[in-house]
Amino acid sequence: MRRISVHASTDYDVLVEHGLLRQCGSLLAGAAVTRHFVIVTDDTVDELYSKDLLHALDMAGCKAECFVFPHGEASKCSGTLLKLYDFLCESGITRSDCLIALGGGVVGDLTGFAAATFLRGIRYIQIPTTLLAQIDSSVGGKTAINIPGGKNLVGAFKQPSLVICDPDTLKTLPGHILSDGIAEAIKYGMIRDPGLFALLDAHNSDNVLPQADEIIARCVTIKRDIVAKDEFDTGERMLLNFGHTLGHAIERHSEFAYTHGQAVAAGMCMLSARTAAPAVTARLIGCVNNYGLPTDYDAPMQELTALCGHDKKRMGGELSYVVCPAIGQGEIRKASFPDFCRMMEESL
Amino acid sequence: MRRISVHASTDYDVLVEHGLLRQCGSLLAGAAVTRHFVIVTDDTVDELYSKDLLHALDMAGCKAECFVFPHGEASKCSGTLLKLYDFLCESGITRSDCLIALGGGVVGDLTGFAAATFLRGIRYIQIPTTLLAQIDSSVGGKTAINIPGGKNLVGAFKQPSLVICDPDTLKTLPGHILSDGIAEAIKYGMIRDPGLFALLDAHNSDNVLPQADEIIARCVTIKRDIVAKDEFDTGERMLLNFGHTLGHAIERHSEFAYTHGQAVAAGMCMLSARTAAPAVTARLIGCVNNYGLPTDYDAPMQELTALCGHDKKRMGGELSYVVCPAIGQGEIRKASFPDFCRMMEESL
Repeated sequence: MRRISVHASTDYDVLVEHGLLRQCGSLLAGAAVTRHFVIVTDDTVDELYSKDLLHALDMAGCKAECFVFPHGEASKCSGTLLKLYDFLCESGITRSDCLIALGGGVVGDLTGFAAATFLRGIRYIQIPTTLLAQIDSSVGGKTAINIPGGKNLVGAFKQPSLVICDPDTLKTLPGHILSDGIAEAIKYGMIRDPGLFALLDAHNSDNVLPQADEIIARCVTIKRDIVAKDEFDTGERMLLNFGHTLGHAIERHSEFAYTHGQAVAAGMCMLSARTAAPAVTARLIGCVNNYGLPTDYDAPMQELTALCGHDKKRMGGELSYVVCPAIGQGEIRKASFPDFCRMMEESL
Repeated sequence: MRRISVHASTDYDVLVEHGLLRQCGSLLAGAAVTRHFVIVTDDTVDELYSKDLLHALDMAGCKAECFVFPHGEASKCSGTLLKLYDFLCESGITRSDCLIALGGGVVGDLTGFAAATFLRGIRYIQIPTTLLAQIDSSVGGKTAINIPGGKNLVGAFKQPSLVICDPDTLKTLPGHILSDGIAEAIKYGMIRDPGLFALLDAHNSDNVLPQADEIIARCVTIKRDIVAKDEFDTGERMLLNFGHTLGHAIERHSEFAYTHGQAVAAGMCMLSARTAAPAVTARLIGCVNNYGLPTDYDAPMQELTALCGHDKKRMGGELSYVVCPAIGQGEIRKASFPDFCRMMEESL
């Protein structure tokens, strides 16, 4: 079993092992101080894995109820959150009890925010079942819901008590959801780890799955190291936004026809084309192509930069963005919003 | 000007002075890192004080918009919170901007929770305009909203950047709202400060207002010292709950016909009668009577203790409560829930 220890305001471990989901009962009981859990999941994941998890908890002498909501980003909203609060009240959850987020990023973000706010904070454990959630949203303590004004605009920083990653759960993922995770893995390679980039570059959608352990562990370690220096996202953590400033604009411009991973992949390539040497951009585009991810987005750049202006990473009049002059060497740059627009809008 | 410095995860000052509201523009601009504020208030307070505050901000070169909601506890709900989030989006509030809570506890709790969660946390400043909010809810960083399952069940710990207390605002308070604050002030005297208790005991509803500075400063200092040792409410902060375990039950049993202050006053007297010497209880009852507050609540004790079982302060099977064997000497006691019920239900 791979164990990555995260040191944040609360310390916790990320455990990675095939088949861990079926055997995690005593690990969960050990990380919580209770035998009473509420599992939060969506209808897709519920059908695949709730039974295994309930059985594992039962074997460890724990009781648990399941709160199940319809899958998809539309559920990451105040309506689902309010229903979850009501469910926690009805289940008699106290301050010492614990939530379990079983699923992808939507489940993790929503459950984490509920755990951050119910009774002003109770424990929660993450069992991410998508690659994106395993390498990204399960580490770092960012939780959120969407509101009409935008995605992730309401949230909290809340560290889980434990993260359980079972790469076996990736076998049931649709191809495009696996690719979504790969886009973030490529990002980690670009900003900090040439070896990880080479590993991803040497594989493709059809043969990458046996490498999942290694990829998850490397990504989590990079994120752990960056987050440890900047838990509350005021400095270096910005590195993790490589491709995201433009990516968020692409997601919105496409009215979310582009998934997060697709938008980040295109965002990385488009930003790299304007800020890095052609050889670096060419390798990035080649790797992105291996996984059927887009390398561009067809819209006037002015329309995209206008949407960047709404990004919440913009502090006052200034905008931060990340460039990778070489693979593995992400750097944070700051620019006035007009300067950023000029740079992006220059023809290539 | 009295200045009480609070050392929590974020340090901040509580300032107390007559007429401060009209002159606080530069203080607000200094405590925030922005010139863009959103004032959150209710319709009653809006009519009384928004104009003064907007003028003070204008004089300091700041711009501000007002979010106004209907006064009363019913507004401390997810519906108002969601409208406030939308308002913040429309106002273009960024991470570096600041909210101002202008009003009583409902305004402070709701605004603080919005500040804790919008963009995963932005700054906020408290300008409490009731005695209860000035001495209690403005210090300690507890924020919350009510949900159908109960009061304050959803919230966060979030420290303000500054607290401005202007005792002149108390002159516009209805008598029963002033008494509500006095009940909490008596609690502070009972748990930590015989001098404060004596000051309150020597006055009554009609002549206490000129003492407001002294009362506010003493209460804030006591709360500051207790909270500094226990920011996240896991130990000594429980002292602040003297009268509250039973008080919350009384509020619920009366279907909130008893206000918070009335319920706490009765809760303190009823608990004291069962746990302290008769002379202590007699002094407490005398002081409570000075302010037209109730010293008892007419219901079978079994019905109240049953409601204590729902209190979120109950950790697992155990219940914590506070006794004052002497004035100024609060102590935390723990009991199993059945033992607590037996103690309370014994006839006097």
